[in-house]
Order: sequence, then structure tokens, then C-alpha cells
Amino acid sequence: MIVHELTRDECDGVLARMHVGRLACALMNQPYIVPVSFVFDSVERSLVGFSTVGRKIEWMRVNPKVCVAIDEIADERHWTTVVVNGVYHEIAGADAGLLARAQELLQKRASWWLPATARAAHSAERDAAVFYRVLIRDVTGRRTSDTLR
Amino acid sequence: MIVHELTRDECDGVLARMHVGRLACALMNQPYIVPVSFVFDSVERSLVGFSTVGRKIEWMRVNPKVCVAIDEIADERHWTTVVVNGVYHEIAGADAGLLARAQELLQKRASWWLPATARAAHSAERDAAVFYRVLIRDVTGRRTSDTLR
Repeated sequence: MIVHELTRDECDGVLARMHVGRLACALMNQPYIVPVSFVFDSVERSLVGFSTVGRKIEWMRVNPKVCVAIDEIADERHWTTVVVNGVYHEIAGADAGLLARAQELLQKRASWWLPATARAAHSAERDAAVFYRVLIRDVTGRRTSDTLR
Repeated sequence: MIVHELTRDECDGVLARMHVGRLACALMNQPYIVPVSFVFDSVERSLVGFSTVGRKIEWMRVNPKVCVAIDEIADERHWTTVVVNGVYHEIAGADAGLLARAQELLQKRASWWLPATARAAHSAERDAAVFYRVLIRDVTGRRTSDTLR
């Protein structure tokens, strides 16, 4: 098994194809991980997401530095991982253009399976939902293969 | 879909059954995520792992606060997630008893699919490998179901 580094274009391809990742944020150096659903905005180079307000959002409002990991694991010898370092940016209602773009991108997906979304579907929490972007500062990726390329 | 909180015993059950998770560490409030392979030590209440020395180990040596997320996702309406907050503890060669126990636990698994291990299998990096524990400070979990229990 050989592990290849991915180019930026190859990383972008994974981000465009995948819609679930794990986001880590940190407060006072205590990290916290949650699964997130996202859509890659290749123009703005950001991951667009939606969440109800909870620990994750509260922490990112204080410390916007985040890390998002996306992986495709077929088995232990066939996997791809992409890691994004980025900055959280909340899309306020006043940013009408950005908000419309985020909603449009997310609506292209048939279902947002976010746990948060599921919980909020029939509650007042939905009213407190926020749209956000993770502005990509850098992206790296690795993929296994059986041969040198 | 209803989301249930798991009891500690239910969380322990997931930790015992699963062997791959995502670990987040943080340095100067920048989080970083990596997939890790682990074995749950129910006696010592810790996750036992093995890694070559790299960014993850270097960061955890500086800031031992970590978060490990383990999930089983069948589909968007059927999933279980467990989140561990814990403290990194490196097992030094001088801790002969702890080291033997860690190795014994890990050897019960047929394969450790860690990317780090794969990379190290045929290189001098293997000599720089470390065994570590994540001492569990608290564990929480959630599971979906179609009915109230």
C-alpha cells in the first residue's frame, strides 16, 4: 500500500463529491468534534453549512479556528482523507446575498441529514438555526493506492 | 426519527465494539482531526492507541486535552454517535506494565489500519512509534430510533 499526497484540485474534487465530514472546534484548548453536513462552494472556497445553535456554534463564535476532516473509507487499505483548516464565518440575516447563496447551495442536496437538523425539524429550535461558512485557509489530502502513480 | 441519549453503559458498548474513531487535538486553539484506531480498556477506562510521531503526537504532548468521536452511520435516519472528552497520556518504555497491557490489547485486533501504521510498516519511522492512552474524562452518546423506548 502506498500513500499519495493529493493535489489541491484532487482535494477540491473530494470536497465537491462528499457532503458529510467531521468538524472540530476548540475552546480554551479543549477540542470538540461533531459530524456536519456541508456543501462545497468552489467559487468562494468555503464549506457551507447549517446548524441549530448549540455548543458547536457557541464555541465557534468565540474561537473561529476550525478543522474539518472528510474521508472515504472502503477498507483499511483503500481510503482517502481530506483535511481543511479554516475559519468560521456566520452568515447573518443582513447578508442577504450570502444567505441566499448558502440556502441555494444547500437546497441542491435532497436531504441534510444533520443530527441537529433532524432534532430541529419539529421544534422551535429551527428558528434559532444559523447558516455558516468555513472559509478554507488550507486543504491537504492523502489517498492510498496499490501502485506508484 | 427520535434521538435518544445513551447511558454510560451503552456508550461503553459502542467503544468496545468499534475500533476506529476521529481524534481532535488543539494547539493554540487551532483544532486538528485525524482518524485513529483504538481499543477500549474498560478496566482503566481509556482508549489505547498506537501512532508514529507526527503533528498529532507533538500537539498532544503540548496540550493533552483531546476529543474522540466514534460513530456508526447506517443512513441519515439510523446512526449512533459517541463523544469522549479525555486526556492524552503517553506510555513510556519505563512503564513496562502499562506498555505490555497496551500491546496485548492492541494485538487482540487482527489489523490496525491506522494510516500511520501503514506508512511506518517498512520504514525507520516504526522505531519512533508511541503507545498512548486517552484517559476518559466523560463520555456521551446519542442514537436514533423510530420509536420512543
